[in-house]
Amino acid sequence: MARGRIPPPAESFEEDEQEAILAANRAFYVAFSSRDFEALAEMWATSVPVACVHPGQPALLDRESVLRSWQAILRNPNAPKAGVSDEFVIMRQGLAIVICRETLPGGQLLATNGFVREGEVWKIVHHHAAPAPPATTPPPPQQRDRRKLH
Amino acid sequence: MARGRIPPPAESFEEDEQEAILAANRAFYVAFSSRDFEALAEMWATSVPVACVHPGQPALLDRESVLRSWQAILRNPNAPKAGVSDEFVIMRQGLAIVICRETLPGGQLLATNGFVREGEVWKIVHHHAAPAPPATTPPPPQQRDRRKLH
Repeated sequence: MARGRIPPPAESFEEDEQEAILAANRAFYVAFSSRDFEALAEMWATSVPVACVHPGQPALLDRESVLRSWQAILRNPNAPKAGVSDEFVIMRQGLAIVICRETLPGGQLLATNGFVREGEVWKIVHHHAAPAPPATTPPPPQQRDRRKLH
Repeated sequence: MARGRIPPPAESFEEDEQEAILAANRAFYVAFSSRDFEALAEMWATSVPVACVHPGQPALLDRESVLRSWQAILRNPNAPKAGVSDEFVIMRQGLAIVICRETLPGGQLLATNGFVREGEVWKIVHHHAAPAPPATTPPPPQQRDRRKLH
């Protein structure tokens, strides 16, 4: 049978979607770490309201405040680089939540990031970062690898 | 024209959905404040993985750990009551993110809660609460009222 003509099964579609979401999440931290405000600004959704909660700060609930806050952070030449790990994805059609660990020079944060799909691209719609204890033992592999979502 | 036979416009459907999401979010805090673990356990989604980040704690990334943590919190006769306010909803078909303020006797938290629709019911799928400064001035009404989402 010519497998190339058979549409991919739903499971494979979900894995592709999950990879795309993880790529969008990682790209966000690459833009952060390289202080690339233009790139980071492009990543925010335009089809829904966006929100952002920086550690210990009030919620920013409109696009302008969110982008202004990131511009201020990234303009600072001493802005830290942030590594991302331990991503955990919860997704439904067109919207996803990623829980992940941010590793900065000064400590660790846990972040909840929301994404929406706009056309073919996953855009960030919400970022909530907060202090977290450092990781102690790594979780077992089945908690870190791809998970069946339905 | 007999308006009764005309299907409700998409906007009205979205408002109904948003009300249902807000009701689910408030019910979560009612169960919390009344220390009703059975009710709270029922509110967690079963169709997708669930996750929970309590303030300053590691992420809990499986159903059993999440429910065990809530059972421990609600078993404590001194568990605080939590009021909820300033809800902000971001939604797409079947999945929603609610950003809200939790008011406890000891201070204020900001929470990001995720919900999925399972049949006719919105179920919680993620809870991330973290310290926040107290609200200073209320946001302008257009930031607190229903927002167009698309």
